[in-house]
Amino acid sequence: MQNPLSDDTIVALSTPPGVGAIGVIRLSGPKAIAISEKILPGIKLQEAVSHTMHFGIVRDGDIVLDEVVAGIFMAPHSFTREDVVEISCHGSPYILQKVLQLLLSKGARLAKPGEFTMKAFLNGRFDLSQAEAVSDLIASETQAAHDLAMNQMRGGFSNELKTLREELVHFASLIELELDFGEEDVEFANRPQLLSLLDMIQKKIVTLCESFRLGNVLKNGVSAVIAGRPNAGKSTLLNALLNEERAIVSEMPGTTRDTIEETLIINGIAFRLTDTAGIREALDSIEKQGVERTMQKIEQASIVIYLFDADEFSPDVVSEDLLKLKKGNDIPILPVANKIDISEELEYINKFNRIEGLSLISAKNGHGIAELKKRLYNTVLHGRNVNEGVILSNARHYEALQATHINLLAAQKGIETKLSGELVASDIRSALNHLGEITGEVTTDDLLGNIFGKFCIGK
Amino acid sequence: MQNPLSDDTIVALSTPPGVGAIGVIRLSGPKAIAISEKILPGIKLQEAVSHTMHFGIVRDGDIVLDEVVAGIFMAPHSFTREDVVEISCHGSPYILQKVLQLLLSKGARLAKPGEFTMKAFLNGRFDLSQAEAVSDLIASETQAAHDLAMNQMRGGFSNELKTLREELVHFASLIELELDFGEEDVEFANRPQLLSLLDMIQKKIVTLCESFRLGNVLKNGVSAVIAGRPNAGKSTLLNALLNEERAIVSEMPGTTRDTIEETLIINGIAFRLTDTAGIREALDSIEKQGVERTMQKIEQASIVIYLFDADEFSPDVVSEDLLKLKKGNDIPILPVANKIDISEELEYINKFNRIEGLSLISAKNGHGIAELKKRLYNTVLHGRNVNEGVILSNARHYEALQATHINLLAAQKGIETKLSGELVASDIRSALNHLGEITGEVTTDDLLGNIFGKFCIGK
Repeated sequence: MQNPLSDDTIVALSTPPGVGAIGVIRLSGPKAIAISEKILPGIKLQEAVSHTMHFGIVRDGDIVLDEVVAGIFMAPHSFTREDVVEISCHGSPYILQKVLQLLLSKGARLAKPGEFTMKAFLNGRFDLSQAEAVSDLIASETQAAHDLAMNQMRGGFSNELKTLREELVHFASLIELELDFGEEDVEFANRPQLLSLLDMIQKKIVTLCESFRLGNVLKNGVSAVIAGRPNAGKSTLLNALLNEERAIVSEMPGTTRDTIEETLIINGIAFRLTDTAGIREALDSIEKQGVERTMQKIEQASIVIYLFDADEFSPDVVSEDLLKLKKGNDIPILPVANKIDISEELEYINKFNRIEGLSLISAKNGHGIAELKKRLYNTVLHGRNVNEGVILSNARHYEALQATHINLLAAQKGIETKLSGELVASDIRSALNHLGEITGEVTTDDLLGNIFGKFCIGK
Repeated sequence: MQNPLSDDTIVALSTPPGVGAIGVIRLSGPKAIAISEKILPGIKLQEAVSHTMHFGIVRDGDIVLDEVVAGIFMAPHSFTREDVVEISCHGSPYILQKVLQLLLSKGARLAKPGEFTMKAFLNGRFDLSQAEAVSDLIASETQAAHDLAMNQMRGGFSNELKTLREELVHFASLIELELDFGEEDVEFANRPQLLSLLDMIQKKIVTLCESFRLGNVLKNGVSAVIAGRPNAGKSTLLNALLNEERAIVSEMPGTTRDTIEETLIINGIAFRLTDTAGIREALDSIEKQGVERTMQKIEQASIVIYLFDADEFSPDVVSEDLLKLKKGNDIPILPVANKIDISEELEYINKFNRIEGLSLISAKNGHGIAELKKRLYNTVLHGRNVNEGVILSNARHYEALQATHINLLAAQKGIETKLSGELVASDIRSALNHLGEITGEVTTDDLLGNIFGKFCIGK
């Protein structure tokens, strides 16, 4: 065992706190099985086969604490690649606390946040970006966030990086070979070929970095604002948008009503419909007090629905409002004409033909709502495809890739301006370091502490 | 299988809702393994051995939903005595909801509250009073409540009832044998012997019923009130009582701060120290407005601490206050003299020698606090011993035992007044029915619905 942690046997409650039918306490480490055996007299866990479960009675002295089932996973066939025991207790906070205390008294140590996953990483079960995805997976609340995290956890992103890294290592080794020959001015690496290789790597990095905007949308959702003058029907639209989704979302265990009310999920992406009262009031007073306050609100949004009454409003007023809303920001604004009478749809289309990208809806009877949702979805996708391959969603990875990009730019420039191989090699080494930070080939205690400190205890 | 439920395969989330490292979904029923296999392609669960765990990937069509571990328990070696599968997923509400939906779509049915435990009961794993104890165990927040529920779950109470019942059945069979002989006036049962047997049974029932008060204290804790005139040091006493406990209790997972602040645990019994502000104000105005409001408050308590300043108060005033507090209720009142200077303890004892059961404390420096806690504990125990054998804690059981008691009184009277054997036998049968309701030998759908409807889903 090369890491200093692996001598410890750690323990934590791995299920959510609170009362339930079952609560699971997990141990990992070389003494996980021996310690568990101590609290389950009569059950010979140390003679058990891996991946078996054993009914037993946890005793604290004379007191029967609980009737439990202990599941054994033997190294390396476990999540952490160490010996792991999962003890299914009755889900009483009192019992779980007592069993935990008992295990601590028998030699286990309370796990730090994310320590099980950190052990799995340190023992080579997966790389750092995969470990981070475990946390994202648990926190995922939508299909998009889930699929993104699952793909990352299962190594999609890691494989992409591995390819990049291998190409760079090959490049670096050629340059460094030249350095070994010192002043002999040997060129093992064909410069034009190297440049085109670097160019290809840079293109991949840029593509990944460009996917971050989408990744962020998929992972964290988007903030959407419905703006418009009074009586445009904003509340009715909000309800029409939320209506069917609300019922579906409320079936989710553990989802509180507070967050449901204003979250709309379209094709797995969460749209957080923020309180539009402020926007509305500010927008109502556009002509009187200017658009400053409105703009501040809108700048915090990712997308704005500008709603107006198709009968009351002239195309001129709409254009004017849109112009004011768009001023000074590049947030997409969807103009939406409300209170449409379907039988007269063509007339509205003619009336507002200068308003680009207009949606026609009737929030009251639901006409056009499905199309508006599609439009919202397509707009936040920025013309991209959710299944377009590897999508970057982690800010730490984004920053490391940006740093890699800058190092490689320097290397490219170095080759073009015929700088010494030593300087080029140094830039490549820096790039490799930054790539390595993503997958954890290059780590520091601080980095690991930062990453796993954000996990919950028990994971 | 004799019960109509057993054809269904039920499924539910068995861990508390919310985000955690692990969430466990449990299935029980004849198709539990087959249904689980459908969502874990490639894993031959139906060929697996009982009590084994299997890593697998849950797929919903093309989408990878989660990497899980499925644990198999084969009938009858499971909690419900049916085939049971426990699927350990990542503890994301989104994933758990999706996996649950997938299992429902493959033929499982969502479990009703307590249905796993009800199946265990219907399949003869334990009797009804043991099934009820499972719920009490999960809800237990103190050692006393835990030990009580654990003893009941492990059959302590059931064994006691079984003995009672066997004795009664023996008795009934003798009486009924006489009835078979019709008018021949045969007496198989020696009447004096029968009466002494009934007497013995009644004594046991009365003992059990008497233990209910203690059982209720152990299970639900007690409400304690600190009363006293202004500046007696009530807040300081409250803090002194709570001080060390608070730190211990706050380590419990899932315990909210709200309940900690006012709950003091002494030897495993919860003392809920209710807000004394009302009491204090009311008591302060004893002389002006009478004690009516104070009495109302105190009548809701199980124990009252009457606190006074030992220097400021005369024995006369204390006696007067105590008399007013005691009027019209039989709630124990502990008189406590505060602000004691330890070096002058003897003088205080002499000064207040007419105050019965007085405690001397200094809330400020902690003197006498430990003794006061012991006194609180002993007072609510009503002179009983926590380990005195079987203690009744369930109101339904109490009522059924009371009904049994009344039936047996009628039987006793019937024998003494030489009523016909038929009437005596009828009383005994009623008594047996009431006893049977406790253990579930006699049940109705309503009774079961009432009992298991209070369980959480997933248990």
